[in-house]
Amino acid sequence: MVGVTDLVTFGETMLRLSPPRGERLETADSLDVQAGGAESNVAVGAARLGADAVWLSKLPDSPPGRRVTSELRSHGVEPAVAWTDPDAGRVGTYYLERGAAPRGSNVVYDRAGAAITTVTPADLSTASFADATRFHTTGITPALSDRAAETTRALLREASDAGLTRSFDLNYRAKLWEPATARAAYEELFEHVDTLFVPRRDAREVLGREGDAVAMAHGLASEFGFETVVVTRGAEGAVALRDGEVYEQSVFDAETLDAIGTGDAFVAGYLAKRIDGGDLSAALEWAAATAALKRTVAGDVAVVTRTEVEAVVAGGGGIDR
Amino acid sequence: MVGVTDLVTFGETMLRLSPPRGERLETADSLDVQAGGAESNVAVGAARLGADAVWLSKLPDSPPGRRVTSELRSHGVEPAVAWTDPDAGRVGTYYLERGAAPRGSNVVYDRAGAAITTVTPADLSTASFADATRFHTTGITPALSDRAAETTRALLREASDAGLTRSFDLNYRAKLWEPATARAAYEELFEHVDTLFVPRRDAREVLGREGDAVAMAHGLASEFGFETVVVTRGAEGAVALRDGEVYEQSVFDAETLDAIGTGDAFVAGYLAKRIDGGDLSAALEWAAATAALKRTVAGDVAVVTRTEVEAVVAGGGGIDR
Amino acid sequence: MVGVTDLVTFGETMLRLSPPRGERLETADSLDVQAGGAESNVAVGAARLGADAVWLSKLPDSPPGRRVTSELRSHGVEPAVAWTDPDAGRVGTYYLERGAAPRGSNVVYDRAGAAITTVTPADLSTASFADATRFHTTGITPALSDRAAETTRALLREASDAGLTRSFDLNYRAKLWEPATARAAYEELFEHVDTLFVPRRDAREVLGREGDAVAMAHGLASEFGFETVVVTRGAEGAVALRDGEVYEQSVFDAETLDAIGTGDAFVAGYLAKRIDGGDLSAALEWAAATAALKRTVAGDVAVVTRTEVEAVVAGGGGIDR
Amino acid sequence: MVGVTDLVTFGETMLRLSPPRGERLETADSLDVQAGGAESNVAVGAARLGADAVWLSKLPDSPPGRRVTSELRSHGVEPAVAWTDPDAGRVGTYYLERGAAPRGSNVVYDRAGAAITTVTPADLSTASFADATRFHTTGITPALSDRAAETTRALLREASDAGLTRSFDLNYRAKLWEPATARAAYEELFEHVDTLFVPRRDAREVLGREGDAVAMAHGLASEFGFETVVVTRGAEGAVALRDGEVYEQSVFDAETLDAIGTGDAFVAGYLAKRIDGGDLSAALEWAAATAALKRTVAGDVAVVTRTEVEAVVAGGGGIDR
Amino acid sequence: MVGVTDLVTFGETMLRLSPPRGERLETADSLDVQAGGAESNVAVGAARLGADAVWLSKLPDSPPGRRVTSELRSHGVEPAVAWTDPDAGRVGTYYLERGAAPRGSNVVYDRAGAAITTVTPADLSTASFADATRFHTTGITPALSDRAAETTRALLREASDAGLTRSFDLNYRAKLWEPATARAAYEELFEHVDTLFVPRRDAREVLGREGDAVAMAHGLASEFGFETVVVTRGAEGAVALRDGEVYEQSVFDAETLDAIGTGDAFVAGYLAKRIDGGDLSAALEWAAATAALKRTVAGDVAVVTRTEVEAVVAGGGGIDR
Amino acid sequence: MVGVTDLVTFGETMLRLSPPRGERLETADSLDVQAGGAESNVAVGAARLGADAVWLSKLPDSPPGRRVTSELRSHGVEPAVAWTDPDAGRVGTYYLERGAAPRGSNVVYDRAGAAITTVTPADLSTASFADATRFHTTGITPALSDRAAETTRALLREASDAGLTRSFDLNYRAKLWEPATARAAYEELFEHVDTLFVPRRDAREVLGREGDAVAMAHGLASEFGFETVVVTRGAEGAVALRDGEVYEQSVFDAETLDAIGTGDAFVAGYLAKRIDGGDLSAALEWAAATAALKRTVAGDVAVVTRTEVEAVVAGGGGIDR
Repeated sequence: MVGVTDLVTFGETMLRLSPPRGERLETADSLDVQAGGAESNVAVGAARLGADAVWLSKLPDSPPGRRVTSELRSHGVEPAVAWTDPDAGRVGTYYLERGAAPRGSNVVYDRAGAAITTVTPADLSTASFADATRFHTTGITPALSDRAAETTRALLREASDAGLTRSFDLNYRAKLWEPATARAAYEELFEHVDTLFVPRRDAREVLGREGDAVAMAHGLASEFGFETVVVTRGAEGAVALRDGEVYEQSVFDAETLDAIGTGDAFVAGYLAKRIDGGDLSAALEWAAATAALKRTVAGDVAVVTRTEVEAVVAGGGGIDR
Repeated sequence: MVGVTDLVTFGETMLRLSPPRGERLETADSLDVQAGGAESNVAVGAARLGADAVWLSKLPDSPPGRRVTSELRSHGVEPAVAWTDPDAGRVGTYYLERGAAPRGSNVVYDRAGAAITTVTPADLSTASFADATRFHTTGITPALSDRAAETTRALLREASDAGLTRSFDLNYRAKLWEPATARAAYEELFEHVDTLFVPRRDAREVLGREGDAVAMAHGLASEFGFETVVVTRGAEGAVALRDGEVYEQSVFDAETLDAIGTGDAFVAGYLAKRIDGGDLSAALEWAAATAALKRTVAGDVAVVTRTEVEAVVAGGGGIDR
Repeated sequence: MVGVTDLVTFGETMLRLSPPRGERLETADSLDVQAGGAESNVAVGAARLGADAVWLSKLPDSPPGRRVTSELRSHGVEPAVAWTDPDAGRVGTYYLERGAAPRGSNVVYDRAGAAITTVTPADLSTASFADATRFHTTGITPALSDRAAETTRALLREASDAGLTRSFDLNYRAKLWEPATARAAYEELFEHVDTLFVPRRDAREVLGREGDAVAMAHGLASEFGFETVVVTRGAEGAVALRDGEVYEQSVFDAETLDAIGTGDAFVAGYLAKRIDGGDLSAALEWAAATAALKRTVAGDVAVVTRTEVEAVVAGGGGIDR
Repeated sequence: MVGVTDLVTFGETMLRLSPPRGERLETADSLDVQAGGAESNVAVGAARLGADAVWLSKLPDSPPGRRVTSELRSHGVEPAVAWTDPDAGRVGTYYLERGAAPRGSNVVYDRAGAAITTVTPADLSTASFADATRFHTTGITPALSDRAAETTRALLREASDAGLTRSFDLNYRAKLWEPATARAAYEELFEHVDTLFVPRRDAREVLGREGDAVAMAHGLASEFGFETVVVTRGAEGAVALRDGEVYEQSVFDAETLDAIGTGDAFVAGYLAKRIDGGDLSAALEWAAATAALKRTVAGDVAVVTRTEVEAVVAGGGGIDR
Repeated sequence: MVGVTDLVTFGETMLRLSPPRGERLETADSLDVQAGGAESNVAVGAARLGADAVWLSKLPDSPPGRRVTSELRSHGVEPAVAWTDPDAGRVGTYYLERGAAPRGSNVVYDRAGAAITTVTPADLSTASFADATRFHTTGITPALSDRAAETTRALLREASDAGLTRSFDLNYRAKLWEPATARAAYEELFEHVDTLFVPRRDAREVLGREGDAVAMAHGLASEFGFETVVVTRGAEGAVALRDGEVYEQSVFDAETLDAIGTGDAFVAGYLAKRIDGGDLSAALEWAAATAALKRTVAGDVAVVTRTEVEAVVAGGGGIDR
Repeated sequence: MVGVTDLVTFGETMLRLSPPRGERLETADSLDVQAGGAESNVAVGAARLGADAVWLSKLPDSPPGRRVTSELRSHGVEPAVAWTDPDAGRVGTYYLERGAAPRGSNVVYDRAGAAITTVTPADLSTASFADATRFHTTGITPALSDRAAETTRALLREASDAGLTRSFDLNYRAKLWEPATARAAYEELFEHVDTLFVPRRDAREVLGREGDAVAMAHGLASEFGFETVVVTRGAEGAVALRDGEVYEQSVFDAETLDAIGTGDAFVAGYLAKRIDGGDLSAALEWAAATAALKRTVAGDVAVVTRTEVEAVVAGGGGIDR
């Protein structure tokens, strides 16, 4: 079998452990288990929508490690994993209690000591860069360890050399680091990034931007030379800036069964449509539709189809029989 | 034991296979299984509300076949089944993914080759017609095979001879046949039908009716000689026409946990109240109340009680303790 | 280990048996089982929010009996149980079908013959009164049997002698007794009660009070000499009266996954905050916040944390990562 | 629908609540629920093997009450139930922890106050006696209350008058009564019984018989005039005596997934074969085969088919594809 | 990504629907769902043990169709599927009740009308033959339809042209065809087969061989020119013949939790070891070990690891901590 | 509430995550979760058999941390936990796949970075030593970190000063350290130990003992001055040496549903009986009975009762009704 690759992503994937909706971790007797990680969520979403996707990471060669790759492969993502001795690093996990207003969803990370914290560029095969067109990673990876940060930088540089379009989702995690530390790390990476995805709140609180989303996008684009900046604004939809032109995308209403992974689904829809040859406006529509559909599906990843995304873009829904 | 029968229905019942809410078929590891079919849904609903109901059908004599009759019997419906060799026909199944906006519910029929497609009038015992007062079937059955269509006609005729009131729910299924074919088949049956249930959309798109629901009802009644025509209009409620008089019935608000079977619950409530001696207006109230309650219950059938229907009609709800 | 006790409660705890949401008891193949009872719900909620709580009751020494105490202990409540021979009384149970509009939640009590109906003051150890500051019971207990009513009276008196503040939640249950009988029983107890919790509807329909909630509170306080009266008004929030001063507390919006136990959570939040030194106004805020959080958790008891209650009071929510 | 009845049984059916295998009641979060009762177990088993069976009992008209009849009906048994007000009697329940050596299965009865304890002959319709050939009940029913004992006697007498063959399974329950009391009650009934099923241990310890199983059968037959006596000896198989002739039946080896209901399955197989025209020897074979199959199925009742029983009798097994 | 292929298999994969152990299909409320098919079972087993495996088949492009490929991909098998319109063929299913002595496992096939029955050589891409070394299929495929039989022949021929070693597992299914018909079809294929796997019983009853397993192997090899013949004898182990030399392999004791797929696991272990360079004797050891491990795992496929197979071969087991 | 303490244990408790029996971690969608740790297993078992038990440990103040203490408390164990900031240490977890011959149970530890690795004597309150009579810990704790080893030593010394009888279960874990390192660490602790539990294999392979179990016990007792040495020999039962006298205890046959925790159950039974005043011989019987019962219960801990242990000692079993 000879494959082609459209998209390469890099990052940590954890096992997500969550009690049934309405139950608490303290009293649960069984936990649903799924693979979840920002960058593999993007790879899965894009793969399901038609892209050939490879995911780079480091995992212990153990049942929990293989649990992660099994699930990614089931969605058609090719894991290019540096397998290590189980003693040299674990599979990160996270506990999720899905909330219901006024009780917020609660995420308890248990990712210290994960194998990926020891990753080096030498661990990873970038053979897939040869025929790929896009590389994607997020601001979570550099927060995991110095090595992970260095490897992020190295991969962005190598992707650049290989002529790939590099996208980066800020994904600031307050439980991992302080805003100032994060900002410094991000800014070191920005020179290697073509497309930035950033929530408005993080643009303000972490990157220190002011004004509305458009102003933020202009400021970031001009300071760091991004080709494209996409600022997401929660229920108010997204704004994108490219070549001085502004694009607005509203949100599709959705019944939220599981909010985790919505942002990753947004990026997945965007990248899949770009890879498919769609323009920025079409990519934002797919992004918003994929994000809306994600909310209706339990788990981190957007288990949706191209047909469903197109139906949402076209205004569909209802029972089909 | 000597029984009496109020209602006889005829049609296909499938096994419905559905993943838990929020999960997708592609990733599910277990599926809920239930018996579901328009005509048995009506029989179950009516039986639960007090009618003595018999259901006519054809099934293979196998565990999946018996799974269907076990469930119907548990609700008090008497299955009068033509049991066949398992090699001569299967139990139809359908896969259901319950949706959440903007993802619609998705029904994947897997009913080709079902035993019922070979049904003939000779297969079925109509002994129950002797003391019954009503016969009900739907527009799904004639779509299944020529034999099923012929048998539908024969049963309607026989019901007529036996003096039963015959009702018919259009239940157009776009996945089974084209509108024009369906219309021709329906119109051949209409002369044997006393009461027609039809959604406004199907009246327009399949039967080619124009105007509002009342106009449609008048047109259908005058053209085909129906005693009663009930046109359902989704959230706008139903309209019925009988002896030139128009009855309006609005919808009871409901939290929808499972929308499948709502239309069948409507018919079940209607028929149960008519059998119970209620007038058309009361029957429409029961119809709407049963339909609303169905939405709160997982599965194809309205697992509700007479007391609950009466409470909804009376405007009840709340925790009773 | 040497403990201290803040709160002592007394009452019946049952096993609650409920099918999954959207399923009916008639068709369920498995039932969730949890311990539930107004007074232990209060003890659990208060214990989870920081109070040292003891629960007095009578149970058979059997697996179902121990199932109850295991669950209470898991939340940090100390059960002080009079264990009896299993032949001398059962563990009450109740069946719960959680509703969805327009189908109300349905509670089927199966508590006849419970061990607690034979309880006498001599059965119970009130050693925990020595260092406790509050005693709480509800209007359910005296409805269970004459002995339970007598024991309630005796405990309230003993609590009084021990200098404890005694609170009483009316909790009228129409399935247990008639309003007039209940009223007579309540009024006999009122002289031993410092703080009364009463729903406005019960104040009107059972206690025969007229006017608005404030007028009711004034009337009750003046007639029976309560230090504090808290009248709850469903979605309109609560009103409290103390030393002639009126306090208003609105409701926090909540997505209701399980409404049972909301009132007990209200009392638990109130008592926990009072025990913690909070004033009446702060206690009402905690009460409302705990009640709102309870609605998001399956089961009778408020499996929440102090941090979560404080977040709701502070207006929080959202995903925390 | 006009039915015929072969077999009428009478007795209490409870809801059986049991944690998954290997779990304990004290720690379980969900319980499997099934209908279980010696006499309905027999009716279900016989109905599944081809007999038309009616079950007489008394139940409250409530969801738990209907849960019982739904399940019986699903197996083809016709419940002829005296429905009472839920306040006038409950549905008995029992908790079952399935054991694994050396931990025995543990049954915790919670049947006090069941509706059946108030049953009178006037409550029950014996219309089904008209065309039935056999009546069956067990030694559990008279243990439940004086009224239940009287009704048992009355039904046996009425069955006699109607010309039915009456069978009785001793089913001594040490948790319900003392051996001496039980013996006296049994002996009052024996004159109305044609066929007695009795475990060897109970013949010895309760009925005071001595010697081996054959000697016991002879003694019982001659003292009480039974037409047939079947003595079961656990793993050593059964011995039957009829018209002075002795029949031996060994046990079929079985992997035991759930031992409860094995004795009832034995009786069901026996009665079904007798009703089907089989001789005593064939009936014992069916009895043993049905009992063996029961052990492989979770729940109180023998969810098996005639084909399976015949395969066991013929020495079958293995995967059939 | 550039892949290599070791093994190509061809055949039908169904969705397997099975109730929990000890439950019956007739009473089950949920069914476990897994992908199962002899040839994909072999591909999965071999892939898990280190081979690069491709599976050829035809499926409808629908959620049930994708359910199959998702699961195969999760184990590392590359599906090379001819996707068809869902109206042109369904996904076959089968119902499985796992048995317990004396109740055999029961398989109810529901595979009529499966998409694969319309498969033609033109539908399938054999690009993977280019770098593969082995092709495997079974005697189930030619039983499905004439087209499937023709395609089997065509693929065996094409595999021959491409220089692949072709193996064939007789897998006679009495529910699909008569012995004589099957034999004729098999014998037409045998000229294209290098390695034959056949159970002793089928060699006798279907292929008409006499004598012991070794004699059968000699007869088959000399008549049809097989390079290797492996005769399996259930609990007595396997016998292989190659170049006139006989190899014996006994069975590893196993606790059977799920017997389905044991034969496929045997072939998978065999092929994986051969692909890995192992000799016939080593391949038989792996075959037997993989088969034994399969019995301990629920589902059709051997979810085992190379380490586990090696441990069994080496005589391991026990708790490893 | 004023408590007394019989037994204090010290060690790590993890969350145990395990797929249902017969399923593999790689393919599981949900995992059972339970608290498990050698020393808390002993505390729970002893508490369930009547001892007042306190468990010392260190945990993060988070939902997973509280999940551990909730479960221990539900069995009546009093957790005396040093709660730390969740950033300062995690809750260790372990993945368990329960085996079936020839597939061994597989334990994957994920305990690196657990809060307990930072434990110091100052973290822990030993107030419970005041009225306790026994202290127990195991050879796992010193393997976790230098600090945990030092704290183990300090607690043993403090227990000695407080006059407690100190027991130690060797519990060598090959996945945690090398035999030589372990031996050195153990021997440093032995001077503070009164009662040693050691499996024969570890006595030989880790402690370098030769000869049979009795010889090993003599050697260890004389070299390290133990009051009592208990050598366990798997299916061959245990041997104990005390004051030069040898006691033999055979194993009770058990159907093994879950083997994990059997050794801890043995110790729990032993200690509970000693605390209860039983002599060594009686303690060994309880030990063996509790261990046998544990095998029939899913989870790490012996969810059994005193009555059940006594029944096993007395040779009981069977269904009790």
